Amino acid sequence: MRNYWDFFSTERIIFGNGSIQRLDAALKSLKAKHVLLITDPGIVKSGILSRVEQLLKSWEYELIVYDGAIPEPPIEKAVECFEFAKSQMNIDAIIGLGGGSSIDLAKIVALLLEHGGHPRQYFGENAIPHAIAPLIAIPTTAGTGSEVTSVAVVTDTQHNIKVGISNNFLRPKIALLDPELTVELPPYVTACSGIDALAHAVEAYMATDFKYIRAEGEILFQGSNPISDTLALQAIQLICRNLVVAVQQGANIEARSNMLQGSLLAGMAFSNAGTAAAHALAYPLGGLTKSPHGELTGLLLPYVMSFNAEAQPKKMRSIAHALALPCDHLTNKEVAALVVRKVMELLESIGLPTKLSSIGLKRETIPEVADSALKIDRLIRNNPRTPNRDGMISLLEAAF
Amino acid sequence: MRNYWDFFSTERIIFGNGSIQRLDAALKSLKAKHVLLITDPGIVKSGILSRVEQLLKSWEYELIVYDGAIPEPPIEKAVECFEFAKSQMNIDAIIGLGGGSSIDLAKIVALLLEHGGHPRQYFGENAIPHAIAPLIAIPTTAGTGSEVTSVAVVTDTQHNIKVGISNNFLRPKIALLDPELTVELPPYVTACSGIDALAHAVEAYMATDFKYIRAEGEILFQGSNPISDTLALQAIQLICRNLVVAVQQGANIEARSNMLQGSLLAGMAFSNAGTAAAHALAYPLGGLTKSPHGELTGLLLPYVMSFNAEAQPKKMRSIAHALALPCDHLTNKEVAALVVRKVMELLESIGLPTKLSSIGLKRETIPEVADSALKIDRLIRNNPRTPNRDGMISLLEAAF
Ligand SMILES: [Fe+2]
Ligand SMILES: [Fe+2]
Repeated sequence: MRNYWDFFSTERIIFGNGSIQRLDAALKSLKAKHVLLITDPGIVKSGILSRVEQLLKSWEYELIVYDGAIPEPPIEKAVECFEFAKSQMNIDAIIGLGGGSSIDLAKIVALLLEHGGHPRQYFGENAIPHAIAPLIAIPTTAGTGSEVTSVAVVTDTQHNIKVGISNNFLRPKIALLDPELTVELPPYVTACSGIDALAHAVEAYMATDFKYIRAEGEILFQGSNPISDTLALQAIQLICRNLVVAVQQGANIEARSNMLQGSLLAGMAFSNAGTAAAHALAYPLGGLTKSPHGELTGLLLPYVMSFNAEAQPKKMRSIAHALALPCDHLTNKEVAALVVRKVMELLESIGLPTKLSSIGLKRETIPEVADSALKIDRLIRNNPRTPNRDGMISLLEAAF
Repeated sequence: MRNYWDFFSTERIIFGNGSIQRLDAALKSLKAKHVLLITDPGIVKSGILSRVEQLLKSWEYELIVYDGAIPEPPIEKAVECFEFAKSQMNIDAIIGLGGGSSIDLAKIVALLLEHGGHPRQYFGENAIPHAIAPLIAIPTTAGTGSEVTSVAVVTDTQHNIKVGISNNFLRPKIALLDPELTVELPPYVTACSGIDALAHAVEAYMATDFKYIRAEGEILFQGSNPISDTLALQAIQLICRNLVVAVQQGANIEARSNMLQGSLLAGMAFSNAGTAAAHALAYPLGGLTKSPHGELTGLLLPYVMSFNAEAQPKKMRSIAHALALPCDHLTNKEVAALVVRKVMELLESIGLPTKLSSIGLKRETIPEVADSALKIDRLIRNNPRTPNRDGMISLLEAAF
């Protein structure tokens, strides 16, 4: 039995409508003058980049922009970006502006800037010796929570696999969250990233208690603890109450703000507690179906919750309570059914698929998906109901 | 109207029974070998120091111990401790072990170690240019939350006043919380420090919303924001449910653990949101009555809550809800009365005074106390119901 938990945090969070104006103060607190901004073509097209660029120029920062981030960026992109920036000037701060992929790429570049070498040498846990270069993360989607997490997801092109580099030193120094930057996000992206944030919150909240995580020594994903629980439950409430409005009325700034706050809290929670079976299953399913990450974690979520409910009856009841589902005289089973139905309805309202068959999975690949997921020990050990092969297969059959 | 909030955090929290064993890992993460440990005579007497010393020696750290911390330490103590330590060796990490005063003293010494000079030159807001020396805070009381806050309370002997130095750089790098270190705390100290933690949580939770704080530019206490609210409400619940047991059955490790967690969450909340009228009033009252800080903030708390209730009816209801007080069909006024009575009963159960007359205050000093408190703008502006002189006097009359 483990007798302690760690809770790691980003040192500073800045949140608010129009808070992009605080970027100057944030950079000043890092004593930065020469800035590398990493972003993606979508942010260029939306006009957000030119707005931020203008601000930075009006404040007289020396600026290099790299706008080549793509989803699950190949590690070569990080090397390319790093070499390009280094050849231009001495950089004293990095800004990651965009969705999870821009921020994840910025994390790897900040790592290289401080420690040199090649991204591949930092793949293992504890492989980063100390802090990375100062990084400010500015998310433009409400989803990954990457602005406060210890994770960067990249593609190792040599082995053609998606790799999550996880290390507490990868947390950005400052997270700057301006809901106004998220209003232009199209409904489908809003839906996928928002439901992924819900999956983070639910998986962190329902994760195995830290005491019962079977692992020795320093681990990154430690199971649920009282702080992650508090933040995750609040995130669940915020996301469930605001996701439909954010998808259907993108310009509703209150819904956008609450979603951004929900994904922030979910990021703080899951980057300490960890995620579980839905995320473990999303890895092999992503390889087979090419569906976006959030579509997969969202689709799996109600089935995983249903599978796990009996291991966390109290927490299922707390979720029901947070969602204002009346369940005073209901049995644990009835409460679980109510909560699962609610998540399913949420998926339907935002137009996301609820069956694996509808996203092109072949039924005969189910055992292979189960086997691959069960190998991801750092996520599977967080799952409150220990899944064996048969259990995992029946979960996938239910979701088919 | 302010359009953003900041939330600052300690980078790493380690929590758990027996987690003092994690001190080695914590020091290693700071790459420390030469350690200055700052503590107080009570910790020496309790045997906690010798236990921690033995551990540090078994792990082969070079260690200097300074055990002269006293409540609200005179700034000369910090200079004395700093000069003493510096003459012995090059220090690469500081440990503050004890109640709030040991940790506060350690903060000032860590400040001097990095920046030199005299404590007095850092009194103003924003007067610390960058990070202080690496500091690990290990609290042995559940109260001040100093292990995660930006505040150090010291005595300026030259002007004979208590001064709170507040700066985000004063947050310890690592907070290590081991409930087992708190079981020997006597009932009266448990009561005073525990009720102070409740005052932190309640004042942070009910503080003016960040939007409506009337102040320009960078401020430390920013009013309530969604993260401080979430943490503060959880703290209120933990403290109200566990303080009586912690006082009456000191060896109850579950109650001790929940109290330590409650004061931690309260510290995270109030060091961003700020405290309000109860703390503003406690300053002049402390000078007049010499009562301990917690006795004063605790005594004032129900009266301040009663005074503020009409400005935060929703939050009063949420507190009632968190305390499982049934209030479905009650008016706001009735809810407020219920919550205030609960806090009053809590004070009575733990044997703390509930009237200013019983702690030796003279009635004729009430206007002077009101005037002094109203001058502490950074706390008064956080108070959700703006207090004028008459209001403050009637609040004090009610508490007399
Ligand atoms: Fe995810
Ligand atoms: Fe206090």
